[in-house]
Amino acid sequence: MPILGIMNKRLILKKRPSGFPDSDTWLLEEQPIPELKEGEVLIQQHYVSLDPAMRGWMNEGKSYIEPIRINDVMRAGAIGKVIKVNNHSSFKVGDCLTGFGGVQQYCVTNGDNWHKVDEALAPMPMYLGTLGMTGMTAYFGIIEVGKIKKGDVVLISGAAGAVGSIVGQIAKIKECTVIGIAGGKEKCNYLVNDLGFDDAIDYKSEKVILALKEKCPKGIDVFFDNVGGEILDAALAHIRRHARIVICGAISQYNNTTRIKGPSNYLSLLVNRATMQGMVVFDYANRYHEAAKDISRWIQQGQLKSKEDIYEGIENFQETYNRLFSGDKHGKLVLKVI
Amino acid sequence: MPILGIMNKRLILKKRPSGFPDSDTWLLEEQPIPELKEGEVLIQQHYVSLDPAMRGWMNEGKSYIEPIRINDVMRAGAIGKVIKVNNHSSFKVGDCLTGFGGVQQYCVTNGDNWHKVDEALAPMPMYLGTLGMTGMTAYFGIIEVGKIKKGDVVLISGAAGAVGSIVGQIAKIKECTVIGIAGGKEKCNYLVNDLGFDDAIDYKSEKVILALKEKCPKGIDVFFDNVGGEILDAALAHIRRHARIVICGAISQYNNTTRIKGPSNYLSLLVNRATMQGMVVFDYANRYHEAAKDISRWIQQGQLKSKEDIYEGIENFQETYNRLFSGDKHGKLVLKVI
Repeated sequence: MPILGIMNKRLILKKRPSGFPDSDTWLLEEQPIPELKEGEVLIQQHYVSLDPAMRGWMNEGKSYIEPIRINDVMRAGAIGKVIKVNNHSSFKVGDCLTGFGGVQQYCVTNGDNWHKVDEALAPMPMYLGTLGMTGMTAYFGIIEVGKIKKGDVVLISGAAGAVGSIVGQIAKIKECTVIGIAGGKEKCNYLVNDLGFDDAIDYKSEKVILALKEKCPKGIDVFFDNVGGEILDAALAHIRRHARIVICGAISQYNNTTRIKGPSNYLSLLVNRATMQGMVVFDYANRYHEAAKDISRWIQQGQLKSKEDIYEGIENFQETYNRLFSGDKHGKLVLKVI
Repeated sequence: MPILGIMNKRLILKKRPSGFPDSDTWLLEEQPIPELKEGEVLIQQHYVSLDPAMRGWMNEGKSYIEPIRINDVMRAGAIGKVIKVNNHSSFKVGDCLTGFGGVQQYCVTNGDNWHKVDEALAPMPMYLGTLGMTGMTAYFGIIEVGKIKKGDVVLISGAAGAVGSIVGQIAKIKECTVIGIAGGKEKCNYLVNDLGFDDAIDYKSEKVILALKEKCPKGIDVFFDNVGGEILDAALAHIRRHARIVICGAISQYNNTTRIKGPSNYLSLLVNRATMQGMVVFDYANRYHEAAKDISRWIQQGQLKSKEDIYEGIENFQETYNRLFSGDKHGKLVLKVI
């Protein structure tokens, strides 16, 4: 007998995709919610986060995190409210929690790795984006790995994306010259007019390598890369001495069925004594509060804009997921699942 | 009228090579030696240094150093003795000097960027190798860029080469586990039996990626890369968390007539929060004395072996140069030109 008389809709990983996920990749099923054991809580999940990293989590093999197992719930960051508790030491009914609850409507958990947030301070979706993993990735990526300093020329790929748009705004706050690469005139206008980027390159209508020559005549100090492929190569060809390249992602390569395209221009690292460094946000977990404090202040002061693109219905997960890779989205992609 | 009644044999860059240099690349010519101007010295060059970096210096375009101009003397590190002086403030006849004298028998210079060395402490060729650029590259590359510490697993490509063999010995002195990649059983035996490496991989008879699994089961902390190409990719697939990859060179790619092969596995940098950094030894010029002091002491104490492979005759330059890329050499390649 399901508790509360309700069923949990959840998305199961059925088959590891080769290239883009298809109709065999996931299965939406309904399950009764099990009784809570001692120390467990039941979270009604309102929103789940959609992130390009999900594509990697579905692959087999060693990575920075265990792959999702077949027949497990699809991994995703989530936010929701505690609706039932069986003697939990930290959480009570009504608490708003965020954690890796997966693509489902309800989550039973002992609360490990879930964090309480204040719904009065920001709307739930923002805790999945600018005040969540997305914001933390942007903050530590550009400040700690990119080591930006006043006056740096900062280039960002996937600049209108969830992470990229925050990276660029932080770099502006830190008094850098910021150039974003994005797909389409509308996104480029958004970067310059709404987010205050100094310039933008539309990779769909411009040749990035030529645009970089024109827009960064003295070269790039920091490149924050979410895209990989030809764009990474173009950036490598334009770095300055002692440049830092932050490898945050490589969305152009995630659905490859052939070998990933390595950066042919990597010897530019040698010529320019430059550094290319990978980052995983989890390494900064014990400093998230620092970032959250800065980011909240910047939002309050109107220096940083947070934009979420919210879709509805757990049954629309796949269609929404595809927007991560088609570029057909505006800001942080979030799905309301209940 | 040539001074001293002698002619200078010198090698001129006539044509930028595409791929491997051929008979049109250089021209050996004889020139009279001009009279010294005020403040100049005439150096009789005994030895010139052969380095893989020479290949890059012949290419057109921006690099870490100006390309050699067509009809200029082929750039090379050199060592020799001052045989004539016109009122020089620092150098006198008999001084042993090292600097970028080029592939020629005599060099007229104002002495800028030439350094006096003590021939009594080490033979001349060693000042082009272990006590010269080669040793400095190894020292600062592995210590400053590789940031080795006791217990690290250090992998070196081109390990039997001039730089690689010193890198490995320094890493052993610093109490690392050291594995070298080299071509052929003889070189591999040399690394383990003569230089004290912990193990070696013969890329000519072993599949590097499989050998790494066996010989570095816990992965690599530091990879010092002189080679690039497939070996860099194999190493990337085996790095540990927070690994450092030192990009010192890419000898497998220098003679490409097609685009350089970029490392397909570069996203391993992300997964492992690792760093890939390029280095150019000239950046450490003001600290060469530190390295020279350590290296000299290690040589005296028998902890570090210096090996030079010396050929004779400026007319044999091209044949000797080819050994850089064929692997047919044993240690630092030096040509006696007089």
